[in-house]
Amino acid sequence: MAYSKWKNPHLKAFSEARVSFLNGQSTPRDFLEECLNNLFQREDQVKAFVDFDIEAARRAADESTKRYREAKPWSAVDGCPFGVKDIINTRSLPTRMGSPSHANYQPFTDAACVDALLTGGAILVGKTVTTEFAIGSARETTNPFDQLRTPGGSSSGSGASVGAGMLPLALTTQTQASGLRPASYCGAYGFKATLNTLRTDGVHIMSPTSDHVGLITGSLEDAWLSASRIGLAVGGNGTALLQRAGQPIVAQKPKRLIRLYTRGWDEMNLINPSIKGALPEISIIRQSLSSDMSASQKAFELFMEQLAKADIEILDRHNNEELHDLEQFLDETIERALELVIYEMQWPFRDYVRRFGDLIGPRIHQMMETASQMTPADYMSLLSVREEFKKRLTATFQSLNADCFILPATTGHAPLGIDYTGSRTFPSYANFAGFPALCLPILSADGLPFGVQLFHLEGRDADLCCLGRWVDEM
Amino acid sequence: MAYSKWKNPHLKAFSEARVSFLNGQSTPRDFLEECLNNLFQREDQVKAFVDFDIEAARRAADESTKRYREAKPWSAVDGCPFGVKDIINTRSLPTRMGSPSHANYQPFTDAACVDALLTGGAILVGKTVTTEFAIGSARETTNPFDQLRTPGGSSSGSGASVGAGMLPLALTTQTQASGLRPASYCGAYGFKATLNTLRTDGVHIMSPTSDHVGLITGSLEDAWLSASRIGLAVGGNGTALLQRAGQPIVAQKPKRLIRLYTRGWDEMNLINPSIKGALPEISIIRQSLSSDMSASQKAFELFMEQLAKADIEILDRHNNEELHDLEQFLDETIERALELVIYEMQWPFRDYVRRFGDLIGPRIHQMMETASQMTPADYMSLLSVREEFKKRLTATFQSLNADCFILPATTGHAPLGIDYTGSRTFPSYANFAGFPALCLPILSADGLPFGVQLFHLEGRDADLCCLGRWVDEM
Repeated sequence: MAYSKWKNPHLKAFSEARVSFLNGQSTPRDFLEECLNNLFQREDQVKAFVDFDIEAARRAADESTKRYREAKPWSAVDGCPFGVKDIINTRSLPTRMGSPSHANYQPFTDAACVDALLTGGAILVGKTVTTEFAIGSARETTNPFDQLRTPGGSSSGSGASVGAGMLPLALTTQTQASGLRPASYCGAYGFKATLNTLRTDGVHIMSPTSDHVGLITGSLEDAWLSASRIGLAVGGNGTALLQRAGQPIVAQKPKRLIRLYTRGWDEMNLINPSIKGALPEISIIRQSLSSDMSASQKAFELFMEQLAKADIEILDRHNNEELHDLEQFLDETIERALELVIYEMQWPFRDYVRRFGDLIGPRIHQMMETASQMTPADYMSLLSVREEFKKRLTATFQSLNADCFILPATTGHAPLGIDYTGSRTFPSYANFAGFPALCLPILSADGLPFGVQLFHLEGRDADLCCLGRWVDEM
Repeated sequence: MAYSKWKNPHLKAFSEARVSFLNGQSTPRDFLEECLNNLFQREDQVKAFVDFDIEAARRAADESTKRYREAKPWSAVDGCPFGVKDIINTRSLPTRMGSPSHANYQPFTDAACVDALLTGGAILVGKTVTTEFAIGSARETTNPFDQLRTPGGSSSGSGASVGAGMLPLALTTQTQASGLRPASYCGAYGFKATLNTLRTDGVHIMSPTSDHVGLITGSLEDAWLSASRIGLAVGGNGTALLQRAGQPIVAQKPKRLIRLYTRGWDEMNLINPSIKGALPEISIIRQSLSSDMSASQKAFELFMEQLAKADIEILDRHNNEELHDLEQFLDETIERALELVIYEMQWPFRDYVRRFGDLIGPRIHQMMETASQMTPADYMSLLSVREEFKKRLTATFQSLNADCFILPATTGHAPLGIDYTGSRTFPSYANFAGFPALCLPILSADGLPFGVQLFHLEGRDADLCCLGRWVDEM
C-alpha cells in the first residue's frame, strides 16, 4: 500500500473565492449563497448552529460585494462568511455557552476576535454549537461524514460547519483539544496560534493560562489570513504578534521532523477509548490485542513513509535517545494540564455551580469538587510543571535542530456516538506548552477523515504555516 | 526641621477591628455601622459612591456576626466592608464604568476579585466612582481633605471612601497610576501586586498587559490580607501567587534602598502641572523657579534623612553612576507605557467610539485616533521596550544588592480642581514593569497628605509588604 492523500470535497476555501471577487468573476454574495446552499442542505442532519441570521449575512455580503466592485475591500477577510463558537461573545446574536444557565445571555460587546473580523468586512453567519462551556456535556451536533459519530468537541459546530462546507471559517477556542480535535474529525484545517497571540477577551473564560482562540477553515491560507487579521486589528496580549502577519505563506519543505508517538499512539489501537481510565488500561488492553496496527495507525505510517521518501529526516523515540526521554516526560506530565485548568476554573464556575445547581452538568460539578480539594501550593506546583514542559520541548527541539514536530491530530477518526467527543491526547501537548499547532485534513481511515498535526515553538507561527503548506501540498 | 510622621485620623483598619470580633468585644455589624456613620456624614461632600445597598450590607454584616459568634469565620476578610471601583463587575449592583454608554449595565457574574472577597465573607457596601472607563474624563468625587481638590484618579471613589474612613477596603485597578495616586492624595494605603497575580477577569479591560487589580485600605495589613484572599480563592493568572499569601507580614528593616528621583522629582516643583506638555516645559520652568524645594519635596527629603539616620543606606543617582544611567533610561522610555495602553485599547474602545459617539469623552476619541495611526510593528517595538525596562530595573537592583526601591507615591499632594486627577509619573514606573508597589500614607505638605512609595521586583510582593511595614512603623 502507498500513501494517498485524502481530500475533503466539501471544503470551501475563502482565499480561492477571493481571487474571483478581485477579478470580478464572482462576488461575496455569490460565495455566501454557495455556503448557504450547503447549510440549508445539511444543517437538519449536522445541527452545527445554535443561531443564525441569514438575512443579516446577505446584507453584509451585498455591502462587501459593493466594496469589491469599487476595488476597496477593507481587508483580506472582507466578504468571508464565518461562524462563531457559542462561548465567544457576539453583540448581534445571543451567546448561550452551550448551557441553559445562559439561555438568553446577550453580550454588550463583540469579543475581540469577532470585532477584528467584522471590522475587516467578514460576514457573521451564525453561532456554532459548543459543548457546555466548552468543557461539560456534549450536545446535538453530528459528524458531517457519519451522523452516528461525534464531530469532536468542544468546538463541535465550528468543526462540523466547516467540514460540511457550510462556511470557510469558524472561530473556535482551545483549552486542551477543543479546536484541533473537531477540525481533525470533520476533515477541516485547524490552527491555534501561540498562547496569548490572539486575544481571548470576550470569550467565556475557563483557564486564563490555557485558553486560546483558534480557527477552523477551508484552507491553510484561510487560517493564516484570518489569524493575521485578528492579530493585526486588535493587538496581541503581550507576546509577539504573529510573525509576518498578513504576508503570504510560502511552502517550505522541512529537512528534519520530530515525530511524537506519545501515549496517543497506543490509544489509536483502542476502540472508542473513554478519557476516564484510558491511560491505566492501555497496557493491559495492548497485551490482549494483536500487534496489528489499526487503520488509523496504518494511514499515519504510510504518510510518514511518504515524507521519508521525500528525503525528510524523521527523528523519533526509536532512533533517538533524547526523544525517548522526552516522550516519557511528556506522558508523565500531560495530565497536569487538566488539573491546572480545573484549579483556574474556580472562577467563575464555583459561582455557577452555586447559583444554577443542576442546570450545570455533572462534569463541571465534579471538577469544582476536585478544585475544592486543591491548594494554592498545588497550583504553584502545576505552574512549575508547565514551565518545565515548555523548557523540555524547546531544549530538545533546539538540540536536534529540527524544523517541526509531527504527530496525528487525533487518535484516529471520530469515534461512534455523540456523547463522547473523543480523546484529547494528541492536541494537548502543544496546548499545554502554548505552542502554535496546525491540523491538516489529509488522512482517512475506515472512510472517515482525521488530520496530521504539526506544531512548532512559541512565536514560530508563520514558520509553522509555511512548513504546513509544503506538507499539505505534498 | 525634623521628620514627623503624618497619620490619617479617619482611617478604619479592618485587621484591628477583627481582633475585637474574635474576642467578642465587637461585631462586624458594629464595625459596619462605624463605617456607615462616616459615609452618611461625608458622602454628600465627598461623592465617593455611584451606588450602594446599605440594607444588603447590614444583612451581610449580621450573617458575618453570627459566624464570629460561632467562631466560624469564613476567612481573614470575613466581615470586612468593601467598595468596588465601578469598572469592576458586580452582580448585585450595576457597573456603570463612569460612562453614560454603560448607564444601566448589569453584569452576569461578579468579577473574580469580588467573588473572592464575597465568598470569604466580606461585605459589599457599594460601587465607587471611577473616571470614565478609568482613563477618560474625571467625575464628581472630591478629596476628603479639601473639597476643592481632586481625590486622584482613576479610582477616585475608592481612594476618597477609604481616606474618609467610610470603608477599610476598596478594590481599584491600575493601568498606569490609577490605584496608588488616589491612595496617596487621600491619605490611604495602596497596594498593587505583581502583574497577573490578582486576576483581572470581570474588570473592564483597557490594556491586557498593563491592567492590575489593586487595593486601597485602612492599613498595610488589610492590603496584604485582602490581596492574599483574592490570590488564594481564585488563583493567579499564570505567574506565581503572592509569596507567603495569608501569612502575617512581619516588619523587616531594610539595609539598603534605591531612591529614584526621575522626572517626577522635577514635577514636584511645579504648581498644578498638567500631564500634557508637563515634560517638555519642565526644563524651562525650573530655570525660572528659585532653587528652593517645594513643601512636598522638603517633606520627602526629611523623611529620607530619617531613614538615613536609622542607618539605612540610600543609593541614588547622585552617589551612584549606575542609578544615574538607569534613571536616564527610565525617563526616556516611560512615555511608551501610555502608547502601549493606547494600542491595546483599540478593543473594545474603537467599537465604543463608533457606537456611542459623543457619549464617549474627547480623551478616548483622541486615543483611538492616535491608535489608528499606529502599526503592528510599533506595537511589537513597544513590547520590546517594556521587556528592556523590566530587565534594566531588575539588573540594576540585583547588582546593587538593594532591598527595595523608594520614591514618592505622587508628585506631592492633590492639586487644586477636580477635572485633572494629577500626575501619573511616580506610580507609572513600577506599573510599566509590572512590579509590586505600595503607597504608605505617612507624609504631608501644606496640610495635605501624600504617600511614600516602595516597589520591589516581580514576585517579591511579600518581601515588599514586610519592608513596608517596617517603614510604616518607623
